Parts: sequence; C-alpha cells; structure tokens
Amino acid sequence: MYKVDLNSDLGESFGAYTIGLDNEVIAHISSANIGCGYHAGDPLVMDKTVAACKEAGVAVGCHPGYPDLMGFGRRNVACSPKEAKAYVKYQLGALLAFCMAHGIPMQHCKPHGALYNMAAKDAALAQALAEAVAEVDDSIIFLGLAGSEMITAAEKAGLKVASEVFADRAYQADGTLVPRSREGAVIHDKEEAIARTIRMVKEGKVTAITGEEVPLKADSVCVHGDNPSAVEFVKNIRAAFEAEGVEIAPIYKIV
Amino acid sequence: MYKVDLNSDLGESFGAYTIGLDNEVIAHISSANIGCGYHAGDPLVMDKTVAACKEAGVAVGCHPGYPDLMGFGRRNVACSPKEAKAYVKYQLGALLAFCMAHGIPMQHCKPHGALYNMAAKDAALAQALAEAVAEVDDSIIFLGLAGSEMITAAEKAGLKVASEVFADRAYQADGTLVPRSREGAVIHDKEEAIARTIRMVKEGKVTAITGEEVPLKADSVCVHGDNPSAVEFVKNIRAAFEAEGVEIAPIYKIV
Amino acid sequence: MYKVDLNSDLGESFGAYTIGLDNEVIAHISSANIGCGYHAGDPLVMDKTVAACKEAGVAVGCHPGYPDLMGFGRRNVACSPKEAKAYVKYQLGALLAFCMAHGIPMQHCKPHGALYNMAAKDAALAQALAEAVAEVDDSIIFLGLAGSEMITAAEKAGLKVASEVFADRAYQADGTLVPRSREGAVIHDKEEAIARTIRMVKEGKVTAITGEEVPLKADSVCVHGDNPSAVEFVKNIRAAFEAEGVEIAPIYKIV
Amino acid sequence: MYKVDLNSDLGESFGAYTIGLDNEVIAHISSANIGCGYHAGDPLVMDKTVAACKEAGVAVGCHPGYPDLMGFGRRNVACSPKEAKAYVKYQLGALLAFCMAHGIPMQHCKPHGALYNMAAKDAALAQALAEAVAEVDDSIIFLGLAGSEMITAAEKAGLKVASEVFADRAYQADGTLVPRSREGAVIHDKEEAIARTIRMVKEGKVTAITGEEVPLKADSVCVHGDNPSAVEFVKNIRAAFEAEGVEIAPIYKIV
Repeated sequence: MYKVDLNSDLGESFGAYTIGLDNEVIAHISSANIGCGYHAGDPLVMDKTVAACKEAGVAVGCHPGYPDLMGFGRRNVACSPKEAKAYVKYQLGALLAFCMAHGIPMQHCKPHGALYNMAAKDAALAQALAEAVAEVDDSIIFLGLAGSEMITAAEKAGLKVASEVFADRAYQADGTLVPRSREGAVIHDKEEAIARTIRMVKEGKVTAITGEEVPLKADSVCVHGDNPSAVEFVKNIRAAFEAEGVEIAPIYKIV
Repeated sequence: MYKVDLNSDLGESFGAYTIGLDNEVIAHISSANIGCGYHAGDPLVMDKTVAACKEAGVAVGCHPGYPDLMGFGRRNVACSPKEAKAYVKYQLGALLAFCMAHGIPMQHCKPHGALYNMAAKDAALAQALAEAVAEVDDSIIFLGLAGSEMITAAEKAGLKVASEVFADRAYQADGTLVPRSREGAVIHDKEEAIARTIRMVKEGKVTAITGEEVPLKADSVCVHGDNPSAVEFVKNIRAAFEAEGVEIAPIYKIV
Repeated sequence: MYKVDLNSDLGESFGAYTIGLDNEVIAHISSANIGCGYHAGDPLVMDKTVAACKEAGVAVGCHPGYPDLMGFGRRNVACSPKEAKAYVKYQLGALLAFCMAHGIPMQHCKPHGALYNMAAKDAALAQALAEAVAEVDDSIIFLGLAGSEMITAAEKAGLKVASEVFADRAYQADGTLVPRSREGAVIHDKEEAIARTIRMVKEGKVTAITGEEVPLKADSVCVHGDNPSAVEFVKNIRAAFEAEGVEIAPIYKIV
Repeated sequence: MYKVDLNSDLGESFGAYTIGLDNEVIAHISSANIGCGYHAGDPLVMDKTVAACKEAGVAVGCHPGYPDLMGFGRRNVACSPKEAKAYVKYQLGALLAFCMAHGIPMQHCKPHGALYNMAAKDAALAQALAEAVAEVDDSIIFLGLAGSEMITAAEKAGLKVASEVFADRAYQADGTLVPRSREGAVIHDKEEAIARTIRMVKEGKVTAITGEEVPLKADSVCVHGDNPSAVEFVKNIRAAFEAEGVEIAPIYKIV
C-alpha cells in the first residue's frame, strides 16, 4: 500500500506574536517541524506545540534555523559548517527537552528556510547538519529535499532519511526545484498540484518544467498552515490521497 | 571519609567575547556549571566546554539563566514560574545535546545569577525550576543554595539535591547569606574563608555574622575562575581540603 | 475649546510577525507611540510606521521598552536607573533617525509596558527616563500616567509633559489605576468608558472605584488597535468627543 | 602640509564582556568608530565611549554592522539593500542620541566587518548604506575603503567621503586588498607597513603585490586596539607620521 507523510511547520509563534494556524492544520498532518528559538519559536511555544502534537498523534521533528529571528531564518547567514553544526545540536537538544518532558520521541529533523536551501546544494553544510543529528541521536530521521545534498549527507552519516517533495513547486530536469525567481516556479492550479503530488508518491515521477520525466522519491509532502486557504489545501490534498488509496502516515512508518 | 565538590561556572564566553579563565580553573574543580546561551555561552562555546570537561574528568552541569545576555543574567526578569520552567527546560536540553554528542551524562543543574537568587527565596519559582529538571530527566541532581527554597523544592520534586556553600560569604543566623549590600557580607581574608569552609564540610557548621553557630550542609563549594587570583584561591582551597583529608569529588559521588 | 489627544501604540510588528491593526487605527488617532526594537518593532517596521504617520498627519513618539522581545516588554527587568536611562536614549535615537529621514519631528516619548508601570511609581526610574529625554532633545514632550512619578520627574527635568488617562480603567481615590488583578479594574461597558473619559477631559475629574471625586489631568487618552473591536472603540470615542465639542489634536497642540 | 586620520574601532564591549584596549588606544587616534549594538556595543558602552572620545578630543563615528552579535558582524547576513539601509539608519540614530546628549557632532560613518567588505564590492548595498547616511544627516562623512564601491556610492549620494587605507595589508594592481586567504595578504614587517603607509599619504601610491605602482587616496588609516602590540603599533605609526611632517587630524579637518 502507498504511504506518504504530510509535514508542516508548527510552533513558529514567538512571545506576543502569533504566526500560523497551528490549531487548524495540526488535525490534517502526520509530522510537525517545530521551531526551536533561533529563527522562530520560544520555550513556551515549543512546550505547547509538543503537547499539541502528542495530543493529536502528530510526530514531532526539530526545525532548526539560522540565528536570525528578525529575518525569520529566510536569509543566509554565512556561518561555517562548524558553526552550523553546533547551532543544529543546540536546537535539537532544546526541543528534545520538551519531547522528554512529554514522554514522546523526536522523530525527525528538517532544516528551516535559508539553512534548508543552502544545505540542499552545499555538501559541506549538509554534512555538518547530518553529523549534528547523528552525533546527538542517530535514531532521528533526517528530512530533506528529495535528491539533494542533504539526502546524500544524511545517508553517509548513517541516518535514516526521508525525501521531501513540494506540491506547488515546479521541478527542473535534474530534479531540483525551479528557483522562485523564475516564471512557472509555483504551480498555482491546486488541482494540478494535487495530481502531480499523487503521481510523485505513486509513480515516483514528476514532469519537469522542460517536459522531461524526472524520477523523484516522495516520502513526505511539505504543506503549510499560514492562512485559511493553505489549511484548506491540506484538507484537500489529504482527502485526495486517501481517495487514491494512499495512506497518510508519519515518516517513521515510511522510511 | 569527608568529601566535597568544587563547582565553578565555565563556558560563559560568547562569540568573539571571552570571559573566565576556563582553561586554568578546570584543572582544580570537580564540577562545572556551563552557560546555555541565555545569560552567557553559545553553541560553539558549549561544545568546546563540554569536550574540555570530559577531557579533564570534570562533571558537567547545566547553568540556566534568565534570557538577558546584556545583563549577564544578573538582573531579575519578572517572568512567571511557568515561563521560568520552560526556559530551564530549553537550556537543559540545549546542553544535553552536547553531552549526548560527547557521550557523557549531565550530572547536575544549578541556576545562575538572579535566577538562583530569586529561586533561593521564592518557593513557586524554585518549584518551577525543580519540576523543569524532574520532567526532563530526574536523574539530574539539583544544586542549590544550602537551606534554601531550591533544596526544599528539588526534594519535593523527587530529585537528588546537593547543597552549595560559599567560601567567601558571611551567613546570617537563619542560614541565609548576608546580602552583598551589607557590611561584612564578603570574607576578604582568604585563610579565614578556607578555614570556615573546611569547618562547614567537616562539622556541618558555620559561625553567623551575629555570632551564632548555624548548621549547614556543604556538599559543594562554589569557586570562581574570573581572574588569576580567583584561580589561585581555588588551588589553595583544594590543597587545604586535601591536607585536611577531605576528598574533592564530583557531586554524584557525594549525594 | 476643549482639546484632547488620542494616542495608540503602532509599529510593534517584528520581522515576519505582524501585531496590531496599524493601518486601520492610524486614521482615528492624533499621536502614535512607535516601538523601537527593544520590546517590539524593527528598523523596517519603524521606517514604514514613521512614513505612515507622516502621511496620515499623526504625530510621532518614541515608545521605549525593556530589552525583552520575548516578553513584549511587559515584564519588569530589574535594571538600574543608569541602565534604563541609556536604553531610553538608545531607542530615542534609533527612532529619531527615521524621523530625520522623513523630515518630521519627534513629538513625544511614552515608555512602554513594564517600564511605564515601574516608572509611574518609582521616582528614581522616572527621573532616569525624563533625564534621558531631556539630555537627547528637550523639545520632546514626555507622555506619562496622569499624576504619576513620571509627570513629576519630567517637569523637574525641564520637559513639557502630557498627562495620560485610560478610558477603560478604574481609578483609586489617590488617582492611581486600580491594579488589573483587582475586581472592577477594567470598565467593560463601552458607553460608560466613553462618558467617563469625556468627563475627565471636560471637567478634569473621575469618580474613583470607592466613590470619591478625583481630580485628574487628561491631555491624552490611550487607545488600542489590537483587534477590530478596539478599532471600533477608537472610532466611537473619537465621534463622541467631536459630538461633545472636544477637538482631537496631537499633544504638541495641547501642552 | 600633509594630514592623515588614524581611526580605530572602539566601544565593542557588551554587557559583562570586555573587548579592546579602548582606554589605551584612544590617546593615539583621531577618529573612533563606535559599535551600535548590532554586532557589538550596548547603550552603556556607547554612552561611556562617546564621553571618553569627547574627553580625549577624538572625533566620533558610527560603526554599523549586521545584526549578528554571536558572529561579531563578521559573517555576511544576506539581507536586502532595503533591510541594510534601515539597519544603518537605526544604528546611526542610536549613536546620535549619545552624541546629542554629550553635545558633540557625529563626524562619520564606517560600516563594520562583513557589511564593510560586502559594500566595498556590491554597488547596490553601498548605495543603500550611503543613502541611509544621507537621509539621516548629510553632514556625516562616509568613511570607506579607498577606491571601492562605497566611495562611489557616497559621492553619488552627496556625502563627503574619506578614503581608508590599511597599513598592514597588501594591495592588488586594481587597488583592491589582497584577500586574507591569499599568501602575502598581510604585511608582517611593521617597519615596512609604516613606510608603505607614509608613502600612501605623501605620494598617494602603493606598490601592488605584483609590483605595479597603484594610485591610492589615503585620508584615514585603520588601526587597532585589540591587544598591547596593536596599541604599540599605533604609537609607532603616529610617531613616524609626525617625524615625517604628517599631521594626525580627524577626518573632518581633511576632507
């Protein structure tokens, strides 16, 4: 039977600031990437979010980012691999404390924003992140962009890996994402996005923006809870998967 | 045989900023309280400090503080017990990651600065800190001011506790420290400070500033590595203990 | 003719985080208190907010807070008056740069949250804040709680002062606010709140929670733009003032 | 008569952390670049440093950096020119408040670390920084790397500019610095460094690492106060300049 994970960023609120419709999206996903205080999130938010995931039966993952709250982790900070490695360990541990307090395991680690984008193509950075996870707890699954340096590095570090795909993004012939700056990068037609994603999961293929058939591993689909229409999309893609006989399951049941 | 722990704050450097003679004091102590990024310390410093403790055979502890780097954690931040509890869990976890990566246990947790001083007399705050530790990992020893609310709270939370004394501070008849603002609060004569401390360990007593004999549990003595004369004092007090047949041992061998 | 200022906090968003319906409330107020990056706000937000105020004809003021973004400046940080003084100067200058760039003056300074509440009753802290303003630019008006230590200190520092009242808060017989923790602290009936405020402005009096008539100077009324109902209230109080022949004017036209 | 400015970074301490021998180097320089809280410095340090400069007759300048205290501003943060412009305005204003309080003008602005290095070669970033200064106060002199994009941008923005040279760095044939990663980038022989610098000032030329004679404007020489030997070098270069009839003067007397 086909299985796929739906992952979403949760716990990115901070102090008096609220971001994301966590309470609504949590009902529809199987894994959550939780901010750890560097690009988003704070200890109270982390505690509440881990508790909510436990309650909802959603698997918990660490979502480490660059130390850049003002930029929400979306800007590259030119730190060395050694620095990035230490930053990921710090954030892993911080979230682990809340998992331990709530008596649940940490399922996975998925880097955030600019750290994710940089590590997708920078082998040394990807290695640093993978080693950070492996040295802290090698039972944690590394969730990274399908076909990217992160997957290679995590496997080399001896970690279980999960390949992530994006429902609403166009792919290039080499399996990388079409950069957002280029026309056609985002699939705006939601039916099409869902159909493409189902094909990624069931056939392991996606049609590139230039027409080629590209093989692609799809263990987990990235979805969002930023706004009501994003939450609506999550409900729809989940329903579509189930109608197609694809089970929604947390990563640890897939890889 | 008499035993006592010598604990010192380590790992309070931050980025380009260096504070403390960690490399010198580490040879003479048995337990280290390591900054966790809130009042001091950063991930690279934490990694390096945990490695150095492992190498030196010094037991590692968490040294959580208020989120106030600019004030070095020395100013009270009027957060709720719930907030303080989450902040301590966060910092515990962050350091735990480096302990796990280096394959050593986290021995203890000792709050820093204003958080320590507040929790010594505020039962609700002390309870929050103790529960934070107990919920994350109840094998971690709580190190707090002898006779304070921290000791009571940590015992109530089911933790092993260690009572800390200060070599260079005067005590009041009720076993609390003479506030620094009052005359005579600091024992400047180093011989006298050492003699008093040996008596605390061997006889479990100290003479209050008002002359009374005060019973006091002394599992661990707080020493400092801020400057060369502080390091010199650590060497001297260690030598004096050993001359008196008091073994220097990490907390976990004492409580 | 009667005049009163309506002031609201603006520019408290931060990075990817949005807080407050600035675009809606700005049309109805005469003065804005702009966050300066310590408890809220960031340089892009400050720039945008000063531009919006200029466009809307709303006078700009500095809204300095404690350095506690995680607590939104609502928690007391036990810094010394000297530290608080330097923090206020820093924030004043930071906002002043955006005023200079947009070619508008800085009208006033109103401390935020815990800093406001502490300075209302702590004469030494109030003096530090008033001196900070006076030393940077003594043409800036100090906006503080009517009858509080802030008013006394600002006058002593040679500043023009504006007395602030709260529409929805009950007062004690000595002119101080009934603490939020006590029953009856908040006036929930909006008609009553408006009627009370009009009386404060026109008669200079308010009825205390214990029944006494209390004299009160009301140069400026604090209003909020946190949510749609708060914005609705601002529209209503403004309309009520105008119907009563009270002109809404920025502080500099009043004091 | 020949004139040159000696500039050094001051005020980069933070909270309990001390960096730089400010008290020693201040006696030998003519202009100071003061940290503004983003990469280094805090309000108390800024206040004290501006006071010390006033006392010593040293001209004060703003030293804005990326918002990266943990990296000391030495790592590129990939912010947009618009973000960088707002960050520089914020820091300019923050320091301006202390200048106003001490009754002295702000002489110049010199970007710090990675912001300086990026703006030297990135025209859009350089333009953003120059416009930030011009929009806040166009009487502030822009101090940037001789021959770099910063100089071009500052002139275009209508600012007075000062060209900075480095005594201990090798130059390439196009007038840019030999990157630190390349051999020969740093001139270790202090006599040679001083002789080269005197020639830059008196003849407006330097010999490139590849042997060519390169024209170079030298209004200000960057010196350091990090350690005793750096301070010694400042004394020596100052004495050498004076012996050669080159007057040491703050930038505003030169450009």
